[in-house]
Amino acid sequence: MNILFVGDVFGSSGRRIVAEHIGHVLESNVVDLCIINGENAAGGFGLTPSIADDLFDLGAHVITTGNHFWDKKELLDYLKVPVDSHDRPRRILRPANFAPKTPGFGVYEGELPTGQTYAVVNLQGRVFMSQNDDPFRKADELLNGIRSRVIFVDFHAEATSEKIALGWYLDGRVTAVVGTHTHVPTADDRILPGGTAYQTDVGMSGPYDSVIGVEREAVINRFLTGQPAKFEAAKGNPKMAATLVECDGATGRAYGIRRILLGE
Amino acid sequence: MNILFVGDVFGSSGRRIVAEHIGHVLESNVVDLCIINGENAAGGFGLTPSIADDLFDLGAHVITTGNHFWDKKELLDYLKVPVDSHDRPRRILRPANFAPKTPGFGVYEGELPTGQTYAVVNLQGRVFMSQNDDPFRKADELLNGIRSRVIFVDFHAEATSEKIALGWYLDGRVTAVVGTHTHVPTADDRILPGGTAYQTDVGMSGPYDSVIGVEREAVINRFLTGQPAKFEAAKGNPKMAATLVECDGATGRAYGIRRILLGE
Amino acid sequence: MNILFVGDVFGSSGRRIVAEHIGHVLESNVVDLCIINGENAAGGFGLTPSIADDLFDLGAHVITTGNHFWDKKELLDYLKVPVDSHDRPRRILRPANFAPKTPGFGVYEGELPTGQTYAVVNLQGRVFMSQNDDPFRKADELLNGIRSRVIFVDFHAEATSEKIALGWYLDGRVTAVVGTHTHVPTADDRILPGGTAYQTDVGMSGPYDSVIGVEREAVINRFLTGQPAKFEAAKGNPKMAATLVECDGATGRAYGIRRILLGE
Amino acid sequence: MNILFVGDVFGSSGRRIVAEHIGHVLESNVVDLCIINGENAAGGFGLTPSIADDLFDLGAHVITTGNHFWDKKELLDYLKVPVDSHDRPRRILRPANFAPKTPGFGVYEGELPTGQTYAVVNLQGRVFMSQNDDPFRKADELLNGIRSRVIFVDFHAEATSEKIALGWYLDGRVTAVVGTHTHVPTADDRILPGGTAYQTDVGMSGPYDSVIGVEREAVINRFLTGQPAKFEAAKGNPKMAATLVECDGATGRAYGIRRILLGE
Ligand SMILES: [Fe+2]
Ligand SMILES: [Fe+2]
Ligand SMILES: [Fe+2]
Ligand SMILES: [Fe+2]
Ligand SMILES: [Fe+2]
Ligand SMILES: [Fe+2]
Ligand SMILES: [Fe+2]
Ligand SMILES: [Fe+2]
Repeated sequence: MNILFVGDVFGSSGRRIVAEHIGHVLESNVVDLCIINGENAAGGFGLTPSIADDLFDLGAHVITTGNHFWDKKELLDYLKVPVDSHDRPRRILRPANFAPKTPGFGVYEGELPTGQTYAVVNLQGRVFMSQNDDPFRKADELLNGIRSRVIFVDFHAEATSEKIALGWYLDGRVTAVVGTHTHVPTADDRILPGGTAYQTDVGMSGPYDSVIGVEREAVINRFLTGQPAKFEAAKGNPKMAATLVECDGATGRAYGIRRILLGE
Repeated sequence: MNILFVGDVFGSSGRRIVAEHIGHVLESNVVDLCIINGENAAGGFGLTPSIADDLFDLGAHVITTGNHFWDKKELLDYLKVPVDSHDRPRRILRPANFAPKTPGFGVYEGELPTGQTYAVVNLQGRVFMSQNDDPFRKADELLNGIRSRVIFVDFHAEATSEKIALGWYLDGRVTAVVGTHTHVPTADDRILPGGTAYQTDVGMSGPYDSVIGVEREAVINRFLTGQPAKFEAAKGNPKMAATLVECDGATGRAYGIRRILLGE
Repeated sequence: MNILFVGDVFGSSGRRIVAEHIGHVLESNVVDLCIINGENAAGGFGLTPSIADDLFDLGAHVITTGNHFWDKKELLDYLKVPVDSHDRPRRILRPANFAPKTPGFGVYEGELPTGQTYAVVNLQGRVFMSQNDDPFRKADELLNGIRSRVIFVDFHAEATSEKIALGWYLDGRVTAVVGTHTHVPTADDRILPGGTAYQTDVGMSGPYDSVIGVEREAVINRFLTGQPAKFEAAKGNPKMAATLVECDGATGRAYGIRRILLGE
Repeated sequence: MNILFVGDVFGSSGRRIVAEHIGHVLESNVVDLCIINGENAAGGFGLTPSIADDLFDLGAHVITTGNHFWDKKELLDYLKVPVDSHDRPRRILRPANFAPKTPGFGVYEGELPTGQTYAVVNLQGRVFMSQNDDPFRKADELLNGIRSRVIFVDFHAEATSEKIALGWYLDGRVTAVVGTHTHVPTADDRILPGGTAYQTDVGMSGPYDSVIGVEREAVINRFLTGQPAKFEAAKGNPKMAATLVECDGATGRAYGIRRILLGE
């Protein structure tokens, strides 16, 4: 079973470069399950229902998010669906360890046309980030309730230590732990000894002539002056950053992981 | 001109894997200048004069450090040498934007046997790190005083945004900006439009069956319990992480950058 | 009913100044219940069973702690007592929102010789502090299980916003919310409209010719140089900082709060 | 010589309570020099030229600010005056350790009608705050250039350790170091041994039925849910928080410090 995970889609140039490549990538790799992190898809800041539809139309089965989940108010209402729904809003996740009252869900279990079941889990780190529930304990709790053998975890986190620690912690219990949020792909993709595919960060699908997606002049100016500034999505040098995980659908055990980085 | 930069050497297994590979790498790539980040070389925490000697013996012209600079008191005294010295202690750098009274220096200018001059600059980030002077302004100040055209910058920093922003800020003014500190190699090595080689993090030269070098049980336990714990250097699965930069010695302009990751 | 809360006892000079004054304060104010924050009682860093005994001998019914809970390993074993115990180890609290596996308990319910019941709750903030469970939700959960009407909360936290917010959140549901941890007494003691006594920080019971208890030269030097240093408890100008809360034992409603600051 | 310092004026209710009391306070205490921290005067977020005029009209000689300096763009242009001006824009300070290119100045030297000279210095902390230049070194640098003996320092900072450390560091070199930013008055006002008046925080002049000035429902909700929210200035229970420092104008040595907290 082949799973494609597409890293944080950033702004219109990110959406465009993903649209350009994803069909070919899905087809040539015989991808069964496609997951896209969409937290920056709407101009770099959040996700709207309409842009989520675009990502679903491109082939996503599930969309994950992260700290930018809150940026577009219209998304919060859109996610108010029953837990047992399989409609598109139910397949947009937010980190499972956000406060219990947060709209939406942090885990989704689905079934592919082949009958293959899978779960997608979205978690967020706490080191250098906002105050959320413990992602390690939340992972334990969620895994107790998941019936699928194939479990894909998007761990949206800043610190390499926290991401790697969660990878080891879940090794042998999930199919893959991939990181998002830093917007830079890491070259440490591997299969951990217990059979979990791991990569610290998949990287951004967006404009690489930028500072993690944002127009670089504004960011540099902020570093130089300390003055808060409005950040605009950059456009230049878009790349789609994704990771392909191959696993045994019956056991959920991963046997392959491969980075993909495609530009214009 | 070829420059090899070796990422944070971590503990004895990091030193051993570097010792195993570096001779061959230096020779086969006709490396002219070798720089090693040694901030974790002494058991994962800091650097001693004697271990620095080992790294110099392996071929390092210059050793850089970072936040672990303070860990071994004996290093601080060892670095008390005149600014115009070219002895080994003078070729161990600490971040230039540490407080002015800090022992040691943050920049070194040297000359190779061929007569080629070069400068190495060590800076540390501020985002999610300790309070230091502004690395952007400090870079401006240092560049004003450097006579060499070949200038290699080790930016020891946590946040991808700060590292990428400094890369763009110095593009065209230095030969290379490579990041260290996160201990995970990033797959974003490139030549920026102005001719500066850039990579967000070179990654650790140390045990990869670990959490950024440390025994994983202790780190996981700390995430689970919050209890402070003694962290020991791990040993398993050592890899040497390095980056090779090719540049024009006359102009300092980079034209090639390539990641190297070598295990047992 | 009169409750005396003594702020973070710091080192030997803190213990001495408390020993000098507390008997007189307890007697002259007809104090029924005495609570002492002892997180810095052992040389400024943590608490030992033997020093806890000293504080109990001085009249403490319950000892609270905070982030320095972990500093003395011998305390952790000492706290392994049954939840329904009323022995001294059971009356040493650690923040209730630490991870579930943490030794000890975060709430204690006791009965005074008069038959008056009371509860003491210890919580820790998250803003600018380590990653713990949400203190607001933890407070809700604990209040559900507490049978006493008199409930005293020590909120060990850094940010004034988080402390004040919890005060308002619990107003009318507990007898008092007092803050600890910043080691500086605040002049905002008041009865909130719902009948909860509130003060942002009780302040340290320790040496005030210091930087929050520590020898000032070392701290200033660290600010100037960034160099980590060993911090020693200062001795000069000890003061006992405490807060007296008067409440109706039958309803738990506070009707008086008064700051106490006593030096040599 | 008597100096009145008024803590962070917050929103319209803060301005109103200050307007109600300040005339009487200035007169009854024979105040020579009046300094107001105005960083929250405009609806809780920043300062406008027109609101600054109101504060000057109330008697301020100098207005200090802090991290909210950036909130109102119109202020930034307004502060573009020559360093040797004594006009109102020159008497609005921003932290002196902001980046060098920041509009405005961080120190002002003036002369009272009596011929008495004075300096006001505005600095910002770095612990738990944004990345700025070292306030300790910046203080040294500024003190070198100040001719007045009477020097009043507003240290806008979060951590009690950093504030107290700067107090000790400047003891005997300035007339007063008072803190702002936490919006809670501290009860630790004192004259340090070298003759410097010190208080960790003067407290907010604004609505105390709030969370540090802001409508409490919004803040509590944010703590409970993590959801970013628009914060509005509260109105209830306004108090003016100020500190009166008495000093010898010839030497700059303080001999008295007294807290003032006045409500409706
Ligand atoms: Fe993102
Ligand atoms: Fe993110
Ligand atoms: Fe390192
Ligand atoms: Fe480091
Ligand atoms: Fe404390
Ligand atoms: Fe504490
Ligand atoms: Fe303020
Ligand atoms: Fe502020």
